[in-house]
Amino acid sequence: MLPLHLQNESHIPLYVQLRDQLRALVHAGDLRAGDRIPASRELAVQLGVHRTTVANAYAELESEGLIQGHVGRGTFICGTTMARQFTPLPKTNGHGNGVGGVRWEALFADERADESLSRLMPEVPDDAIGFVTARPPDDFFPVNEFRRCCNSVLSTDGKRVLQFGSTEGYEPLKRVILGLLRDEGITARSEHLLITDGCQQALDLICKAFLRPGDTVLMENPAYPGAIAIFAAARVRCIGVPVEVQAGRAEAPGLDLNALESLLAQNRVKLLLITPDFQNPTGTSLTLEQRRKLLEILARHQVPVVEDRIYARLRVRGAPLPSLKALDRNGLVISIDSFSKVAFPGLRVGWCVGPENVIERLRLVKQTTDLHTDQLAQASMAEFVRRGHMSRHLAKCKKVYARRLEALENALEKYMPEETNWTKVDGGMAVWVTLPAGFDAGELLIHVRERGVLFVPGKYFFFQNPQLNTLRLGFASLEEKKIAKGIETLGALIGSELRKKQRGARHFDSGRVALI
Amino acid sequence: MLPLHLQNESHIPLYVQLRDQLRALVHAGDLRAGDRIPASRELAVQLGVHRTTVANAYAELESEGLIQGHVGRGTFICGTTMARQFTPLPKTNGHGNGVGGVRWEALFADERADESLSRLMPEVPDDAIGFVTARPPDDFFPVNEFRRCCNSVLSTDGKRVLQFGSTEGYEPLKRVILGLLRDEGITARSEHLLITDGCQQALDLICKAFLRPGDTVLMENPAYPGAIAIFAAARVRCIGVPVEVQAGRAEAPGLDLNALESLLAQNRVKLLLITPDFQNPTGTSLTLEQRRKLLEILARHQVPVVEDRIYARLRVRGAPLPSLKALDRNGLVISIDSFSKVAFPGLRVGWCVGPENVIERLRLVKQTTDLHTDQLAQASMAEFVRRGHMSRHLAKCKKVYARRLEALENALEKYMPEETNWTKVDGGMAVWVTLPAGFDAGELLIHVRERGVLFVPGKYFFFQNPQLNTLRLGFASLEEKKIAKGIETLGALIGSELRKKQRGARHFDSGRVALI
Repeated sequence: MLPLHLQNESHIPLYVQLRDQLRALVHAGDLRAGDRIPASRELAVQLGVHRTTVANAYAELESEGLIQGHVGRGTFICGTTMARQFTPLPKTNGHGNGVGGVRWEALFADERADESLSRLMPEVPDDAIGFVTARPPDDFFPVNEFRRCCNSVLSTDGKRVLQFGSTEGYEPLKRVILGLLRDEGITARSEHLLITDGCQQALDLICKAFLRPGDTVLMENPAYPGAIAIFAAARVRCIGVPVEVQAGRAEAPGLDLNALESLLAQNRVKLLLITPDFQNPTGTSLTLEQRRKLLEILARHQVPVVEDRIYARLRVRGAPLPSLKALDRNGLVISIDSFSKVAFPGLRVGWCVGPENVIERLRLVKQTTDLHTDQLAQASMAEFVRRGHMSRHLAKCKKVYARRLEALENALEKYMPEETNWTKVDGGMAVWVTLPAGFDAGELLIHVRERGVLFVPGKYFFFQNPQLNTLRLGFASLEEKKIAKGIETLGALIGSELRKKQRGARHFDSGRVALI
Repeated sequence: MLPLHLQNESHIPLYVQLRDQLRALVHAGDLRAGDRIPASRELAVQLGVHRTTVANAYAELESEGLIQGHVGRGTFICGTTMARQFTPLPKTNGHGNGVGGVRWEALFADERADESLSRLMPEVPDDAIGFVTARPPDDFFPVNEFRRCCNSVLSTDGKRVLQFGSTEGYEPLKRVILGLLRDEGITARSEHLLITDGCQQALDLICKAFLRPGDTVLMENPAYPGAIAIFAAARVRCIGVPVEVQAGRAEAPGLDLNALESLLAQNRVKLLLITPDFQNPTGTSLTLEQRRKLLEILARHQVPVVEDRIYARLRVRGAPLPSLKALDRNGLVISIDSFSKVAFPGLRVGWCVGPENVIERLRLVKQTTDLHTDQLAQASMAEFVRRGHMSRHLAKCKKVYARRLEALENALEKYMPEETNWTKVDGGMAVWVTLPAGFDAGELLIHVRERGVLFVPGKYFFFQNPQLNTLRLGFASLEEKKIAKGIETLGALIGSELRKKQRGARHFDSGRVALI
């Protein structure tokens, strides 16, 4: 394996780091003319980066004449001497940077783009055990039922579906979602509801509508990297409210409300973003008592809250808790939700519920962002829900997830060293693990990846004070056997690292003794 | 008709203006208890605003107890005395602004939201002749062919389509689009192409990737309001390059390149946005000579250009001209395009072609904006193109549009007063009309709307120096007979207004004579 070390935290884009390190290896003679380097897809998996990152680095090295691809054989080093003689490949039309060209990099509004989301979506080789994703497994997708819904809406309402639509959303879908909201104790009218391209867009619209550079937002730390990335790009100041996960194996106390209260008192906060159910990445939920207290605190400080409901329907144990929106008596809450986790992430359909003037503003922002959400997806999902397919599919998935969660918990209990903790969750798609102090989950990943197991190091979820000894285990997409096997591998590795560290510590201790 | 006068240019939101004016009419006694007011849909058409604007005003008046809706009968004034006694309707959960509520308006990042796009999408009553839209007529949508494509992709690749996808786009669609680009003389690879949710999103991503508040962008003036709105929201400084349309009935000289050159010399310009083919709203195109000269000027000034290709495939006369991207030898051009005008606007699928590092940056921006574009729409459109349906559909539409354009030109020639000018276009969806000096197209609209004819006043397309005597006539969605009838009505009205003005001028002249 090539000695490559990319630093995600660096201000230097990953592909530039990779390009420079590969070039350095050639110049140092570690890579020589004729040496074959890994395919971009392969190297991307090894490094845990997006394939485009590697492709970009390779493209630049190729244009320098340092490497060359041969169809069907692979990519090879041309060597430095050759590189100098090498005639650069003719540029394709208009993509070069010839005479009169512009330095695009100098024009980018940000110094660096955020790649943290790509980090969460590495390509998992087929034979690996990947605890990385928090997406529904497609094995259970009722594709035929969905196809019939799609057929039906195109047959009955095809012209309307394919014609330009309204920014607020496709009316039949809005009616269906108002029904879902009613079932959750939220009496809303069409004016309180905006259809979005999933929760990610809802967050983007909220950011555009409310936040200017320098504004302050509170959110859980650790948090969903997609939210962190939006606020970072908008130069919004994010302050973390700690999520308490350390209290012991059986407890998951969730958001620290005392910390929240003092942060509200000390800062001029524009809004709070929170995931009351199965928060990503910790999996923790707020109790009913905590929800009430949270709303009471926010009302006192006159600070509104955006609640992310994306995992809320995935409760596999205990009674469902009311959303903040359902408890809201003061119009403080904007609720965002999506079909991505409960049905099909490939369709980008989500929604946003809030006071009428907020929804109207968000509608105007959405209009300039993408005019409206795809109507074929909206219409087909409306039909899918109306025919009862969604609730049946969800019920089936929840049974599967419940078994997988149980398998994960049993395996953790069985194989993890005593010094390891994890959150106790009642649904969602992930469990959060805290390794013994001194562990770096990023380093652990390098070793466990060689044994065919993947997870996401916790550091990608922190925007402040990263805890390197944390990691996220997504369980929804893995069969029980694989879960058990993966955790056995992980636990054994942690155990052996731990014994090494303890031996090291004893040696160190005896060393100290010797020195005294 | 109620004496309501909304000012689009005001910083006060339209719904607030409407609410306050209606309230004033009640307090003044012009509207009295028991009076019926128009349905929101009806009033929206009358005022040329979005239905939500009226609905918002009504909702506030209803919560004040000033008006009340009765199912099946309409909305009525309660009267001021009643209003005071009136018990406010119980608020729905969480949508009120009760004790402890927040003043959301005070939290919005902008003082006002831009409603100009809504203005371009008024609801057109069935019996009206609406020259307002620039969207394809759905009468010709090959819905069944599309439905079969949709079926096919769900049958063969359903799980992948419905699963979370990649930000760069669904691979089979990318291949299809690379083929379309090849046919236009653009040799691009997958890394040069990003799928977007239509051109509107492409503009939003470009704005996010490149522009900070205070940056300067050049664009045509008049221009597409969706672009104006994006830049306004991002606090980008837009400078207009004049589009010459006034040279006479038979000429449409397009963008003023001399003006462009001096603007580039005088300002630090970040980028130029331009529509070389059938620019919205003027319908003008750049000649091949102008395209070459434009690229030469931009290369000299090292300023990149975003070209909007959305109407380019809709040429109904003459030979197609190469895009700026096809002519680009310096990597200066980002090209944006979409299926919205040539197939189905209800599916939000567009794309963006540019240098690899630009596409990579836009990919990262898109990732935080909405993760990826809906995959059902992407897959179905790929199949629709692959099966040859798109080229057949497009050929059919172009024949229809050619007839409609000819009908429009004949009608303009026949019915318009000599003092009126319009652009000579070879495709696209609209013609731009310049009325005699002193005319206000907004006022003209009020009168012609009473005769069942609608158009878009030109002022909504200007971001600087609005020319009130201009208007846009969209022809793609109207049958020839309706076009002739609509232009006859419009021409007659302009003629009679013109005679009135001329009489007025004569009176004024004789008045002056009398005074001397």
